[in-house]
Amino acid sequence: MTSFHQFHQQMQPAIDLTMQRVVLSHPLIGQYQGLKEMLSYHLGWDVELNRSEVQGKRIRPLIVLLTSAACNDDRWEAALPAAAAVELLHNFSLIHDDIEDRSPSRRGRETVWKKWGDALAINAGDTLFTLAYEALYLLQETCPENIVLQSLKIFNSTCVRLTGGQHLDISYENERWIELEDYWKMIEGKTAALISASAQLGALIGGASNRLQQDLAEFGRSLGIAFQIQDDWLGIWGNAAQTGKSTESDLLAGKKSLPIVFALQKKGEFAERWLAGPIQPEEVGYLANLLIEEGAQRFAEEQAEGYTRRALQSLANANLTNNAGQALQELTLMLLKRNS
Amino acid sequence: MTSFHQFHQQMQPAIDLTMQRVVLSHPLIGQYQGLKEMLSYHLGWDVELNRSEVQGKRIRPLIVLLTSAACNDDRWEAALPAAAAVELLHNFSLIHDDIEDRSPSRRGRETVWKKWGDALAINAGDTLFTLAYEALYLLQETCPENIVLQSLKIFNSTCVRLTGGQHLDISYENERWIELEDYWKMIEGKTAALISASAQLGALIGGASNRLQQDLAEFGRSLGIAFQIQDDWLGIWGNAAQTGKSTESDLLAGKKSLPIVFALQKKGEFAERWLAGPIQPEEVGYLANLLIEEGAQRFAEEQAEGYTRRALQSLANANLTNNAGQALQELTLMLLKRNS
Repeated sequence: MTSFHQFHQQMQPAIDLTMQRVVLSHPLIGQYQGLKEMLSYHLGWDVELNRSEVQGKRIRPLIVLLTSAACNDDRWEAALPAAAAVELLHNFSLIHDDIEDRSPSRRGRETVWKKWGDALAINAGDTLFTLAYEALYLLQETCPENIVLQSLKIFNSTCVRLTGGQHLDISYENERWIELEDYWKMIEGKTAALISASAQLGALIGGASNRLQQDLAEFGRSLGIAFQIQDDWLGIWGNAAQTGKSTESDLLAGKKSLPIVFALQKKGEFAERWLAGPIQPEEVGYLANLLIEEGAQRFAEEQAEGYTRRALQSLANANLTNNAGQALQELTLMLLKRNS
Repeated sequence: MTSFHQFHQQMQPAIDLTMQRVVLSHPLIGQYQGLKEMLSYHLGWDVELNRSEVQGKRIRPLIVLLTSAACNDDRWEAALPAAAAVELLHNFSLIHDDIEDRSPSRRGRETVWKKWGDALAINAGDTLFTLAYEALYLLQETCPENIVLQSLKIFNSTCVRLTGGQHLDISYENERWIELEDYWKMIEGKTAALISASAQLGALIGGASNRLQQDLAEFGRSLGIAFQIQDDWLGIWGNAAQTGKSTESDLLAGKKSLPIVFALQKKGEFAERWLAGPIQPEEVGYLANLLIEEGAQRFAEEQAEGYTRRALQSLANANLTNNAGQALQELTLMLLKRNS
């Protein structure tokens, strides 16, 4: 078993226990039974079996705990409140993103808005947002006050970046054309900011110097960008997207993913078709191939590999030689090779 | 000029300057021009004239500053970040409430969702929520770290209560019948929690003892309940609601306001009509009178007066003898007598 899998087995249950402490054991949440049910459902705590399928990968909290352990073997448990906070924040953003994108399903089940309607879903997202902060206050049990306050401030700037990136993502949907530069700005906020903050929070709580915190924040940023590009790749050429008439393809949603934005700059046959109007399901297979011919797939792969290399370089700069440092390297390479 | 009006003139511009510092001067928000425009519009900063009409009454931040000044004449400026935070939080909740209620207008203008669509509006609300926390961090400039952390925790529990109350409010819309007890639980979270927190935050920053903080939190809670009952009264018998075919009446929206919930318990003619199905515009005048006949108006007035008395009693317990203490009394009486 690799270092990563050993840590994963140990950390995963602790992450969910901390999240459950914050959400299910909250004295106020107990007063609002309906709200508690909605949150349990979205967080995948309403089922006993197949939890990992309905809960998502919990990548971000693992990054918090691994960076913390990489800086100081004995500090990962101290970072659990921050790990819970980033995962709750990520899940809040999913509830609202699903409403904003009108996505009917997530992790094989109905989305919250689809099940309870927009009004209750928007509000449940707001509750989860608040509970992410509640989690951070638990750092008072394991860290001095100045570290708690620094963590809160890192977390908060991240929220501003996250909603800023989401603003761009929604705005781009109404535009057929965007530049590569617009794409980078969007994913910087939408994806890279929270993964970067996860690494930075872990480092801060692990007692890292400012210099080391910055190296690890930079690691998280590069990893986040590589992660998003891989997501974009899967959205066009992944298992769910590649069938001839797939409804899962990003081509149908008009999403401004990296391969598409790249092909737009080429102004070739793909760009011409794209600008002519919405893509139909029967065109998905042809256009996915056309993107390959026009070099968009190779460009996306090169970019994902480039950012993965940069992430590994930042890790090397940080010079983390223990098992947790090793596990961070493994995680980085695994994320590039994932197929879902 | 009364004490209240003198304080109001001095404090109002300082509140908006602090809010603008947080929102408009935020280094990250500057990167998202579209988002900045949406927030400026909602906060009423896009117009030079008639600002007070499009900005709302700014009651909550005034309560923060007045309680702070009532505890210590020299501390109200130190409380400005908390004042800005509660008003930003209130405004975040309005953006989301308007989507949840499908309200097309607020303060005489189109609501944010009506102007920009649901997706961008949900996200702009999330940004404003985050910025409310950003405001609180400015307390580091005027308060020791433990007070900053205590303020953050009071603020955060309030957010949980606020979204809990909103959950009930939305849930009740699908029920024709609720008990009085359900009503009290809803407004406790939806309205009283934030006004109570406003008073408590002011007291905390003003250097009040725990005992005094509790008295003032209790003052805010009673004031908040009285405020909501008065709102309910105006929603049926106020200027906008009282015309025969008004579209502004809470009777049409099926809202579970206090007079209606009271009349439901009476099980008289009003309850019978209510349970039979949605109210039509031409029935509004008749039903508003029927509510008076069945004692619902008097009940609401007695309750509003009762909670106002309790608020004044808590203020008397707090024994605040300076001008700001006097202004809090005036504000309490003014809110009971307002007609919009």
